[in-house]
This record gives sequence, C-alpha cells and structure tokens, in this order.
Amino acid sequence: MAMTADVHAKAIALIKLSIEMTTAAGSGHPTSAASLAHLTTVLLYQHMRYDPANPNHPAADRLVLSEGHACPIIYAAAADLGMAIGQDRDHWRRMTREDALQLRAIDSEIDGHPNPAEGFPFFPAATGSLGQGLSIANGIALAARLNDCDKRIYCLIGDGESREGQIWEAIDFLAEHHLTAVCPIFNCNGYGQSESVSSQQSADVTAAKLHAAGFSVRLIDGHDPDAIQQALATHVAHHQQAEGTPLAIVAKTIKAWGFASVLGSEVHGQPVPEEDQDEALAALDAMAQRLGVQGSEEVLGISATPLQAPAEPNAERRAPTFREALKQFGQEQVLEQGKMATRKAYGIALRAVGHANPSIVALDGDVKNSTYAEEFAQDPELAARFFESRIAEQNMVSCACGLASAGKIPFVSTFGKFMTRAYDQIEMGFISRLNVKLVGSHTGVSLAADGPSQMALPDVAFFHAWSTVRTRHGEPFLYLLQPADAYAAYALTLAMAEHHGPCYMRTHRPDVPFLYDDTTAFSLGGHHVLAAGHDVLIATTGYMVHEALNALHRLREQGIRAGLVDVYSLPFDDVALLQLVQEHGGRVVTVEDNYGAGIGAALAGVLTRHEGSYTLKQMYVRQIPKSGRTPDDVLRSLQLSADDIVHTAVGMLDVASR
Amino acid sequence: MAMTADVHAKAIALIKLSIEMTTAAGSGHPTSAASLAHLTTVLLYQHMRYDPANPNHPAADRLVLSEGHACPIIYAAAADLGMAIGQDRDHWRRMTREDALQLRAIDSEIDGHPNPAEGFPFFPAATGSLGQGLSIANGIALAARLNDCDKRIYCLIGDGESREGQIWEAIDFLAEHHLTAVCPIFNCNGYGQSESVSSQQSADVTAAKLHAAGFSVRLIDGHDPDAIQQALATHVAHHQQAEGTPLAIVAKTIKAWGFASVLGSEVHGQPVPEEDQDEALAALDAMAQRLGVQGSEEVLGISATPLQAPAEPNAERRAPTFREALKQFGQEQVLEQGKMATRKAYGIALRAVGHANPSIVALDGDVKNSTYAEEFAQDPELAARFFESRIAEQNMVSCACGLASAGKIPFVSTFGKFMTRAYDQIEMGFISRLNVKLVGSHTGVSLAADGPSQMALPDVAFFHAWSTVRTRHGEPFLYLLQPADAYAAYALTLAMAEHHGPCYMRTHRPDVPFLYDDTTAFSLGGHHVLAAGHDVLIATTGYMVHEALNALHRLREQGIRAGLVDVYSLPFDDVALLQLVQEHGGRVVTVEDNYGAGIGAALAGVLTRHEGSYTLKQMYVRQIPKSGRTPDDVLRSLQLSADDIVHTAVGMLDVASR
Repeated sequence: MAMTADVHAKAIALIKLSIEMTTAAGSGHPTSAASLAHLTTVLLYQHMRYDPANPNHPAADRLVLSEGHACPIIYAAAADLGMAIGQDRDHWRRMTREDALQLRAIDSEIDGHPNPAEGFPFFPAATGSLGQGLSIANGIALAARLNDCDKRIYCLIGDGESREGQIWEAIDFLAEHHLTAVCPIFNCNGYGQSESVSSQQSADVTAAKLHAAGFSVRLIDGHDPDAIQQALATHVAHHQQAEGTPLAIVAKTIKAWGFASVLGSEVHGQPVPEEDQDEALAALDAMAQRLGVQGSEEVLGISATPLQAPAEPNAERRAPTFREALKQFGQEQVLEQGKMATRKAYGIALRAVGHANPSIVALDGDVKNSTYAEEFAQDPELAARFFESRIAEQNMVSCACGLASAGKIPFVSTFGKFMTRAYDQIEMGFISRLNVKLVGSHTGVSLAADGPSQMALPDVAFFHAWSTVRTRHGEPFLYLLQPADAYAAYALTLAMAEHHGPCYMRTHRPDVPFLYDDTTAFSLGGHHVLAAGHDVLIATTGYMVHEALNALHRLREQGIRAGLVDVYSLPFDDVALLQLVQEHGGRVVTVEDNYGAGIGAALAGVLTRHEGSYTLKQMYVRQIPKSGRTPDDVLRSLQLSADDIVHTAVGMLDVASR
Repeated sequence: MAMTADVHAKAIALIKLSIEMTTAAGSGHPTSAASLAHLTTVLLYQHMRYDPANPNHPAADRLVLSEGHACPIIYAAAADLGMAIGQDRDHWRRMTREDALQLRAIDSEIDGHPNPAEGFPFFPAATGSLGQGLSIANGIALAARLNDCDKRIYCLIGDGESREGQIWEAIDFLAEHHLTAVCPIFNCNGYGQSESVSSQQSADVTAAKLHAAGFSVRLIDGHDPDAIQQALATHVAHHQQAEGTPLAIVAKTIKAWGFASVLGSEVHGQPVPEEDQDEALAALDAMAQRLGVQGSEEVLGISATPLQAPAEPNAERRAPTFREALKQFGQEQVLEQGKMATRKAYGIALRAVGHANPSIVALDGDVKNSTYAEEFAQDPELAARFFESRIAEQNMVSCACGLASAGKIPFVSTFGKFMTRAYDQIEMGFISRLNVKLVGSHTGVSLAADGPSQMALPDVAFFHAWSTVRTRHGEPFLYLLQPADAYAAYALTLAMAEHHGPCYMRTHRPDVPFLYDDTTAFSLGGHHVLAAGHDVLIATTGYMVHEALNALHRLREQGIRAGLVDVYSLPFDDVALLQLVQEHGGRVVTVEDNYGAGIGAALAGVLTRHEGSYTLKQMYVRQIPKSGRTPDDVLRSLQLSADDIVHTAVGMLDVASR
C-alpha cells in the first residue's frame, strides 16, 4: 500500500516535469508521456536492474521506447534519477532538472525523440518512427543470449503504432526464437495523433492477437501500481521457465492522465500552453491529494544494481585470403572454373569473417540460398550466430540494429529490392549511428528473367545520398560498395567487417569471370584502374565492368585508347578520379545498372567542383526493365550493352574532334 | 462429382503447362504454381465473374496474386482460356499455348512476375515483392464501393509471405472498412524459399490470428475441389449479409502437387530440368489416372459473364484559383497574414481538386491534421473518398495502388520520413505504371524540434532516381516537386491532379511568406527565376528559397549581383537551366535541405553533358541533424543558413577573380 502511494506520487511528479519540459520547449508530447507515467515509474524505479550512472552497461536491463514521442516521461525520470548523459562517455554527467528543461534545444542531449547518439545512453537506439522498437528489443535479446547474459528487455509500444505490421513481424520473431527475456508492453490509451485508434487496436483485440500468436497476456490498468508490478513479476516467472510461453502486457491507460481537464486526452503532440501550465500542475496536485499521496514521492529511489559484464568475446583473428578461405571450406575447385558470382563470394567471405571475429552475426530473410548467407548459416561453428528472419525485412533490419546496439556486428542480407522495404528502419539505425552491414543481392538488371519486382534499381541513389553524409569527425558516414568480381566481393566484405560504421554492398546473380586476385588491394573509398587510356575514360562498377571490358576491347580494335576504372566505392577519391578524367582528355562515360543519381551524378559533382572543361556522358537504366531470359537481352533492351557503350564513347570523340 | 473430376483434370493440365513453360524459360516457380492449381481452376473456371476477352473490365471480379512468383499457373489458365493479352489495348490478342511458352522472354508479355504494364491485363497490379497483394485488393474493393459496383476481389497469399507485417496491416484495414468483397486466401504449402515456413505461419496459427482480427475462417484442403467451392460460396454469403463478418480461407496445399516425386516440395524457384520434364509430366498423368480423371479436362470451360460497367463519374470541372478556393472554403483571411505553410496549401488544393474531379481520392496515415489532408477528410462532400489508413504506411500505399488500378486518382499523404517505409510498395506501383500522387510533409530540416526521426532527408535522392526514368513514350516517368510557398503548393497540386503519372511532392511544416500569386505559372518540369543576376546563380527550392532570398539581399548589399532560381521540379528544363548558369558566369550554388544526390547532382549532370567550364558548389545537409527549437538553429548547425550561402557565394567569386 505504501508502495502504491509512492508510485502514484512519483508518477505525478514525473508528469509535472514532463509538462514543464514540453512547455519550455514549445513542443512535444506531454499527453502521451502521462499515459506511461506509472509504467515508467515501476519499471525505472522498482523493476529494472540497472545503474543510472551507467545506463548502457552490457549487463543492464534495457528499455526500448518504441513510441518514441512519449520520451518526456523517461527524460523526467532520468533527471530525477541523475541518469548519466553526454555525447562523450569520458565526460558523462548526471542529468538534472535543468537539463530536462533544455529539451529539444540545439545544444542539448535531450533530443526531441530518443537518440542515444545525441548523448542519452539509456536508450539503446533511436526511435520515433513508429513500430520498430519491439524488433530492436528482439535484437538486444539475441545478443544477450549469445553473451549468456541474463538481461531483460522492456518495450513500450503505443496502441496506435501497433497497427504497423512490423510489430507483428516482431511478435512472430519473438515467439519463434522464444525470446522470453523481452517483455512487450502495449500502452492502450485509445488515441492516435489525429483521432481515436481503430477498434482493431483496442486492448481486447490486441490481447486476442497476442494469444493467437502464442503469447500469454496480462490485461491490466496501466495506472495501477500493483497490477503493473504483478504483471512484470509474472513476466519474470515466465522467462525463468525453460518452456514458458512469452508474455505480453496490455495496459489500458489514459492520455493526459491527471491533467486531461486542462489538455484533453484527444490532444497529441502539443505542450500545455504557458498560460495554462499552472492549472495543469494544480490538476496533478489535486490528483495527488485525491489519491492521498501528496509529498510522498521523495521516498522512492533506486539503488544501483551491481552488474557484472558478460565475458569478453574471444579475440579477433586475421581473416584468410579468398584462396585460403576457399581451401579451408573445401571449395577451392571453383577457382578452376574461372568465374563466380559476387553473391557467392560474399557467402564465403561472410563465413570467413564469422570465424575471424566472434562479434559478427548474420541475418537473412528466407533467401539465404540466393544471397549465399547460407555459407554462414550452415557452418556448425557459426550457426548459432545466424538468425533466419523469414520474409519480414523490417523486423530483420531493426533486429540487426538491436544486435548492433548490443555490440554485435550484424551482416544483413536479402535481395537489394527487398532491402527497400526496410529503408526507414535502416535510416533509424543510421540515426542511432549503429554499425550495421547491409548486403543487397540480385541488384541491377543482370537478374534478368525474374523481372523488375526482384531488381534493385533506385538503391544506388538512396545510398549515394547517405554516402554524402559525414560523421562528426568528418569521415564518410556510409560506404556504398559494388564489387565487380568474386575477389572484390570477398575483399570488400572483409573491409566492411573491419570498418566501424554502416555499409551497403550490392552483389549480383550471374557468375562473372575473375578480374582480380588476392594481391589486389581494395579499400573503402577506393577504386581500381583496370586499363589506362588517353581518349576517353569509362567509369563503371559491379556487373557492368564486364560489359565495359567488352566495349574497351572493341574500342581498342578501332584504335581508340579508352581507359577503364572500376569505381567500386561511393564515396570515392575525388582527387584521384578527377586526375584520371583529366588524363583522358576530360572525357568520361559512366555506366551503371541502376537508375540515375548514382556514380555518374557523383562524378559530375566532382567535375563541376573543379575548374576546367569536362564532358561526362551518363549511361544508366532509363526505363523500367522487364523480364528477359538472359542479362544480355535485358541490357540490350535498355541500351546498356557493350555495343551501346562503344557507340557512346565513339560519339564523344566525334564531338571532341569536331 | 463430375465437377470434382473436371477440376482435378483441369488442374493437372495447368500444372503440366506450368512445368513446360518454366522449363522452356529456364527459370520460374513450377512448385509454387502447382500448390495453387486447384484454387486457380475453381476461381478462374467456375467462380469468378469476368470475361477472359476483357479481363480488366471495370465490373469484373479481380484476382490479385500476392505471391507473384506462382504466376505460371495463372498464365497456364490464361493460355487455356484465351485470355486477352497485349500492351496496347487496341491490339489485344487471345493468349495461346505458344505465348505461354515465351514466358520471361524479352519480347513477351508473359513477364517473370505479374505485371499488367507488360501486357497481361488480367492482373490488376504488379506483384512479386511479397506481402502487398491484400492491400491492393483492399484498394480495388474501396474503388468498387465508391462506384457502387458489386465486384469481388480474390487474393492469393503465400504462407511464407504472410510473415510480412503488411499482410496484417491489410487484414486490419479490411476488417475496419468491412471490405467483405475481398476474399483473402492463404496458400499454406508449408515451404518458403530456403526452408519450411515457421510454425508461426502454420495454417492453424494463421487461422487463429485471423479469428483474433475479427474474421470468420474456412480451413480447407486446397486440392479438394468441393471444399474450395464451398468455402468460396460461404464467402459470397458472408459478403451478401450487410453485417457479415469478413471471411478468409486458409488452404492447406502441397508444393509441387502431383510431381513432388520428381522435383521435391522443398524445391523453390527452379524449373524441372529438361531431361526430367517427361518424368514430371508422366507423374501428373499417373496422378490423373489415380484420380480417374484422365482426359476429362476438356469439358471445363467458362462462358463470358455479361458485365455492366459502372456509371461514368461526373465530369471533371475546372479547379479554382488559390484565392477562389480559400474564399469558397471560408478561409480567405489567411491571405492577410502574408504567410502560410506549404502543407496547409496542399490541404486547400486537395480539397479543391477533390471537388473538381470525382476520381480523386485521398489517403493519410493518422497525420491528416499535420499533412492537412484533413481539409479533404472533413469536407462532407468529400469525406466518403477519404480513407484513414492509420499508422500503417505500407498498406496505405499499396491500397492506393489498388485504387489507382481501378481508375481512381489517389493522393497519399504522410510525413515524408514515414513515406520511406513504403518505398518498395511505391516502386511496385511504379512498375505497374499506376497514377499515384505521393505527398510527403515535414520534409527537410525545417521541422526542427522533433528531430531526425521525423525528417525526410534521403527522399530527394530516391525520387531523383525515379525522375531520371522515362516512359515508353520518352516522357519523364515521375516528377519530384518542391513548392516554396503556398501558391506554388496549390498550383503544383493542381498540376499533379491533371497529369497522368506518378508524382512526389515535398511540403514543409513552417509558415513561410508568400512569394508568388495566382498569376504565377507553375508546370511539371518548370522552374521560376526569382531574381536575374550576373555574378553567381543560386539554385534552390522549397523551404530553402526563403533562406536563399535572405542571402540574395545580403549579397546585393555587398554589390554582388546574384541571381536566384526556384528549381521546384525534377526533372527540370536542362537547356533553360544551362543558359541561366551561363548568364551567371558559369557559377552556381545549389542549396538543399536534404542529403546529397539531389538537385545539385542533377544540375552537375547537365553542366557536364555540355561543353564549357562551369563551377558548381553544392550545399546540402552533410550531417545527420538533431533537434533544435527553431529552423534557424538547425540550419545554422548544418551550415545551411543565409550566412553560409553568402559565404559560399562570395568564396566562388573570390576564386573566380583570382
């Protein structure tokens, strides 16, 4: 009973600070925050095992706030608890009430939505684009299981956001992988942003859906401290049974609890106007009085839980060369065939880096036999670090983000086309500055027969944009990599594994001849000059290098000294590329198997940043492709065959000699 | 009983042709196709009300093959039924067995996955990226309801693909909107691509999930003709009851039914090898013999159902000017304020075009009070054409595709950031060549306080890529539009409504001063010169025009004759822009509130296509933003303020005068 009063009193205090914070900021979501006040209080003050001074300790229980806009309530608790904040871990400080009142200011760590990267390490990952939190929680749970760490992960999910299909992908994943350490808590306050939530998202229907998916469900009053504690205790009990079903909590709550008379429950994303703030705070005081708990919040405080870090993983080893790896895996004979698809080399490389680095994990979306992630999945020593994520790319990517937030290095593979489904989840991982490696297979048009529903074509533009972003230290934020042969794919996978930061690699379906060998150097940001010329430079990469090589030979037969550079990385070395173009009379043709806004656009940017006269012809996919039985059929239909490259290059020289 | 035999015989014949087609193509999915053979036969030969000679008749029942890879079974039936095919409606022909054997050839209408745009009009939209079909079916059902047309829509969904959360978004949408005309049929053959499906996708669990979501369920043997017919009849009965619950069919089936002895049920996406084809066909003949149905398929054939087209919608009217529209809606006073957010003007425009054109419909994802789609939603004359799609962007976009495939003109709005979640669904709509209008609000960084989880930043690169694509007629496939003020937003919304083809418009949160008026001309592909200069050109658009105007004034105070162009469309007029740059000494600064690969990259492409020496400095967002309380705070932190523009422009002139 005393506990009940303490929780009520603390919850009221946190709501009051949430109101003050958002009014000071001039924006924010105090009504959503209030609906979570009691759940937050019981979790952060009574139930979670963590140390506020070290909130992202590897062994600490974690909280994922999937409905990120409700963050003021967490910030309020963090200020009250003196949680560690600060961008630079060496200069963490204890959060104060004054910090809280800096919510959303440009120089504040207290960002508008959760983002550990801005200096609030209690949150494992950025949220705010809805529906992603439970997948992140799943990833953290997978990492904890790999680390043999008894960590629990709580995920607060809005009722409105539970309309996002990704929540149900995550529910299925949780059940299938028996991640009972995760406790999904649905916050059913009945209101979305623009109106009431659908009856399909009512507490009862949500509970029924969870039952159908194999969960036990506790349907509770989310403002009843005892009910919350009992439900959380039941979750722990389920988790401790080896065969226990997963448990979810469905909590009925009230938006703007305690001050709905001032700012209605239907109000979303609006602070209490400054002139109404006193009235709102007074309403909460009156509520405290009604509950008989005024002034009692001071007694509630947590003592830091002693935490033991999980064992350090085994030391990283040097990864073998491609030839060594093939030998090790009993596949050396493929070298005799003289050709291999880049996707297959990715599989070999993934397996090799998996052995070399115990932090590496792999996820795939039911296409592991196409992406060749199965090389990793079927290796008995690595299989426990492979997570079959089924046909649910959004959950897969956010789950990878959870794994990365817990220190793993996830490699995520699916068709490049299907990776598109998770671009928003990818962006949220990027906002969190997580070290995630994305590998899209069957990119470009060389897949041919399956047609455009399986081809990745605007992917280069999307990741090109990310490659123009810089980290706080001025380094490229992301590398977009396009290997042209198996050696390149192998070497670039190793380079991705060594680099701390996100990468996207494109692989292709067809077998292609070897161009390189184990002595060829590949680096993020690099390129490779395959032929030096004089008259015109062909800049291309990936599958199109092979088409360009054909063109190069024909051009040379015509006496045209064309050069060829494999621009396998975006960003690339601007100065070196500029010089290369200059060495070819300022004439360059770019050849891409994607829509525009890719390498050609990037190179145009370089040429126009510098003085001088240059001519650049961009060849790329200018029509939505269709099926063809061979890559050649499709390339010819898109005017991207070797013939077309020759034609374009010759045309430039004709113009130049006029 | 005779019917049963006929269905078996026909199903076997269709499987045999599926095998022959895929073996001839050298790729494809005959095993998945076979699992649907009986469902396809009953639907296409007995149950659906349509005319094979006119398969996309406005009143015809439709079939959406969500698991697009199973298409050979539909193609086989289409060949048998002489379905109309051909890209050009005026030259449709009846499909033959020879057509079927051209599956996946570069000049064939019979594409690798369903795509009406390649000449197979029986399919309402392209599928093949999984999980999208039921949403498309929902859209078709909404259109039928608006047209007062008693059409039924069947959707075949794979068990593996039902792991996609979008399927469950669509299930909720169907239930909420009581779209009982849609019949979801889950094809539970137990296998995905790379292994068995999860137990979370078993027939029983799927049925339980459907029950929980408010469906009646028929769990049947998907190779039992009687059971299929009874289940379909029950669906009709449910649909005919005003208050009937929606009904779904869960069918247990066998992958590679009838020839699993030759190509196992676990095989996915592989044709029968040529040398095994006779054995596979013989296995099916043996199956026919076992069932006692050899040779009886000839009796099964459909007669064309007489169809009556729905009434033509009322004629389109001219849309009013912005001022007229505001007056009409009683909002003229906003003009006196001298400023208005582009998102608000979009709302006014949407309402105006809604009144002018009865084919226009609107969808929004629970942010209609932020995107201002509520202007349309709350208008009593338009409300029936507004579909609140809740927080489920994937279903929203695919549903819009269904509406478009049925002849409506959907305007889809949400935050630009959240539109990202549906990029794959958008691409499938594009592959289908559907006339969909996408409006992303709160783009760029001017949203400020809410932080990066709510900001759209790589969206310009993504749609820039699509703007480089051309239609078969050489026209731009897509226009990316960025209005700088309310008049521009209004005019461009009208232009989108008039144009047949996809568009993406970016709107912004803050109120901005009016720049234009009702006499300013705006066109897709256009730009507007705001100030002619001589020394340097500033090319920008959207919110950044206002920052650039500030910079322009300061530059002029310094005696620098800068010009300013509002490049509100991608693609733009290359020749005109090139000339403008030339008139400014070949010096241009682009200013964007997105990551790179946007307008700057596009302009660089133009400058490098043409002879001459140009200098282009691209200013864009180069760091992941964080919250700030004002747009100015954020722009300054990203070095994109008016000061920074001045600094960059002056720097170019210094270099030029060296």
